[in-house]
Amino acid sequence: MRILFKNAKILDAEISNFLQGHVVVEGDTIIYVGEIIPKLSFDEIIDCHNNILMPGFVNAHCHSPMTLLRGACDDMPLNNWLFDNIIPLENKLTAEDIFWGEKLAILEYLASGITCIEECYFENESIIKALKQSGLRARVGFGPSTRKVENLVDFLKSQLSLCDGEMIKPCIYVHSIYTTSSSEIEQCVDFAAKYNLPMSIHLCETLEEVGNCTVNNGGLTPPQYLESLGFFDRQTLCYHCVHMDKDDLQILSDYDANICTCPSSNVKLASGIAPVYAMQNKNINISIGTDGAASNNSLDMFKEMFLVATLSKVDISDASVVRAKEVLKMSIINGAKALGFDCGEVKVGKKADLILIDTQKPHMQPNDNLLSHLVYSAKSSDVYLTMVNGEILYRDGKFLREDVDTIYKKVNEIKERLKNEYK
Amino acid sequence: MRILFKNAKILDAEISNFLQGHVVVEGDTIIYVGEIIPKLSFDEIIDCHNNILMPGFVNAHCHSPMTLLRGACDDMPLNNWLFDNIIPLENKLTAEDIFWGEKLAILEYLASGITCIEECYFENESIIKALKQSGLRARVGFGPSTRKVENLVDFLKSQLSLCDGEMIKPCIYVHSIYTTSSSEIEQCVDFAAKYNLPMSIHLCETLEEVGNCTVNNGGLTPPQYLESLGFFDRQTLCYHCVHMDKDDLQILSDYDANICTCPSSNVKLASGIAPVYAMQNKNINISIGTDGAASNNSLDMFKEMFLVATLSKVDISDASVVRAKEVLKMSIINGAKALGFDCGEVKVGKKADLILIDTQKPHMQPNDNLLSHLVYSAKSSDVYLTMVNGEILYRDGKFLREDVDTIYKKVNEIKERLKNEYK
Repeated sequence: MRILFKNAKILDAEISNFLQGHVVVEGDTIIYVGEIIPKLSFDEIIDCHNNILMPGFVNAHCHSPMTLLRGACDDMPLNNWLFDNIIPLENKLTAEDIFWGEKLAILEYLASGITCIEECYFENESIIKALKQSGLRARVGFGPSTRKVENLVDFLKSQLSLCDGEMIKPCIYVHSIYTTSSSEIEQCVDFAAKYNLPMSIHLCETLEEVGNCTVNNGGLTPPQYLESLGFFDRQTLCYHCVHMDKDDLQILSDYDANICTCPSSNVKLASGIAPVYAMQNKNINISIGTDGAASNNSLDMFKEMFLVATLSKVDISDASVVRAKEVLKMSIINGAKALGFDCGEVKVGKKADLILIDTQKPHMQPNDNLLSHLVYSAKSSDVYLTMVNGEILYRDGKFLREDVDTIYKKVNEIKERLKNEYK
Repeated sequence: MRILFKNAKILDAEISNFLQGHVVVEGDTIIYVGEIIPKLSFDEIIDCHNNILMPGFVNAHCHSPMTLLRGACDDMPLNNWLFDNIIPLENKLTAEDIFWGEKLAILEYLASGITCIEECYFENESIIKALKQSGLRARVGFGPSTRKVENLVDFLKSQLSLCDGEMIKPCIYVHSIYTTSSSEIEQCVDFAAKYNLPMSIHLCETLEEVGNCTVNNGGLTPPQYLESLGFFDRQTLCYHCVHMDKDDLQILSDYDANICTCPSSNVKLASGIAPVYAMQNKNINISIGTDGAASNNSLDMFKEMFLVATLSKVDISDASVVRAKEVLKMSIINGAKALGFDCGEVKVGKKADLILIDTQKPHMQPNDNLLSHLVYSAKSSDVYLTMVNGEILYRDGKFLREDVDTIYKKVNEIKERLKNEYK
């Protein structure tokens, strides 16, 4: 299968300019980017006049099946939200429920140009079945989540075979230091070392987490505590990182840890505003995630990009920091780097995870300053087409692999069943 | 003309629940809301199955023609942005340019369900011509803007006749205390008293404004200074109000002043986060505005609602405050009250400013908790239909009065002409 995207405004590999030109995809790979249409035969030619062609977004932190709990528990702080409300509801979710919750999230991802995710939940058989059906690219976390398992090491071993190593890669996911014992964390670190796997964790999300950690661990902050357990010896991705001082950030920087910032979740749960500018100054690779739909409440990287850029400014009273171009990089290539996938650039040899953005909308006019528009004024509904690994999965409002009506029916049935729990 | 909206989820007049039922509009007015279709003949029947029917949004603060400068000056603090960049560009804008900038903003308003605005700019002949062509409802501010006039009182008199008092109402608009002298403000107050007009002003938008005011006016904060000039003796609408302490808010409360909060502009310009919860506790009528597209950079009340709810939480570290229902009221009925229009409720006798929201989108599923979804997960692209004063102006992506291609062509020509100024 060879597809030509012609006459596009192509976001360049440095994510800083647009090239007026053409892109050819063959199989799962970008084989041409340039100003002249190459003399080849094409199975499909897509005229991109007035469209931006760019890499798909990498959503570096989410709990997709939490779409089932969207709007169920608003206006609560994290601990009350998680332990008193969300986990009791999650305990009612079956493996099949989780499959349908994942499917609903996938619809949101594809319609808003997200082509690759880092998934952290439980019942991973269901999740991976849905992901494989959908064609999305994902790194899936296995480990001590909020749903407990009997023998951790046996469990981790059993999960590895679920991944194909290509479209679905594994990582070892430790939910947090406040839901996982130090011995469990050490088991995970050992397992990850043995199988050469990266690791992920929620870290410094709330002040309460930081305070409890220092009280319970001889004054160690969460990064210091994790360092003492060897956590950062692996390649790591740390979600949130809201409450970190410069010494904490220095630890992450020293170990080349990756960060995923999740601003909409952090403000809705009143957790705080992450020090993104300070992270940049420590040369840390910063990616962006939506978190789950029960906390934020939609899976939209455009919303997150606007928030990263603007909250970072207001947090330190400096409108000149964390600019559009930097935020766009975080949402694309930095995410691909954090997750270890060979996508995130419109460049020959890269995986063809591509999206088209319609610029003929009122909020995208005048049709100049498109880098700024992508971060400050574009909406997820401007995504016209989403391709993952060379396959078009969404186009002009239609999902090419998904049966939308069945997914809506199933998630609403599950919601009805859970309804008494919501009151 | 009599139109039936049937089978809708109708947001009730208290903006707290949904009624499954039917609404009849005759001429410019809602004449029926109920569970049984009345026995009448209809010119048009609109089946609203799966749609929310609700009042249109009231955008209580904007400078619409600044769409022409979208993305032109990002990542700068307010004073640098305004005086060094925006005003020099604005000085190049002709009356005709402003007409086309207003038209572009109107497209954004209609496509995102905004049916009524408070407009503050200059060249009001152009603005009102565009507004009348469009069918939008507006209160238009006349007064000492950033574009100076020779004789203020003569100017104000000349502007009043531009309004029809029905769809286009006047108010006296003082740009700010830092661009207007005390004698100009007093002239405006006198004029407003003589003609019984309400007044508007940017107030306490930045810390710099507050600091300069106290230094230059014997320690008076901006609200104290305005009180000394008799400003609050009129009905007033104060934009932004980011840096107000409880004594400042008490002044606004004592005089029944209205506030319009503009969070996206405040965070992008790093001005700060408005104390919305403290305003609520002073029983002040709080409305919401987008501000202009040169500062925020899109005219989207869904974006503003999410920000009001979540920034208010994170600002005081309390996730339980400023809930979805309260924010929805701010964006609709509080705005109508602040501007003095008889709209903002789906209720017999009210003006028919109505919108339909498509709930069959992935981010609106499961299809429960719709009040929450409207604030936390809905997008402006979910607006399917926009009616103002009984006339359908936007439906399913089509603008029924506007020529989109011509507007895009004109604004891009203007942008090209200004381009050298942008570099």
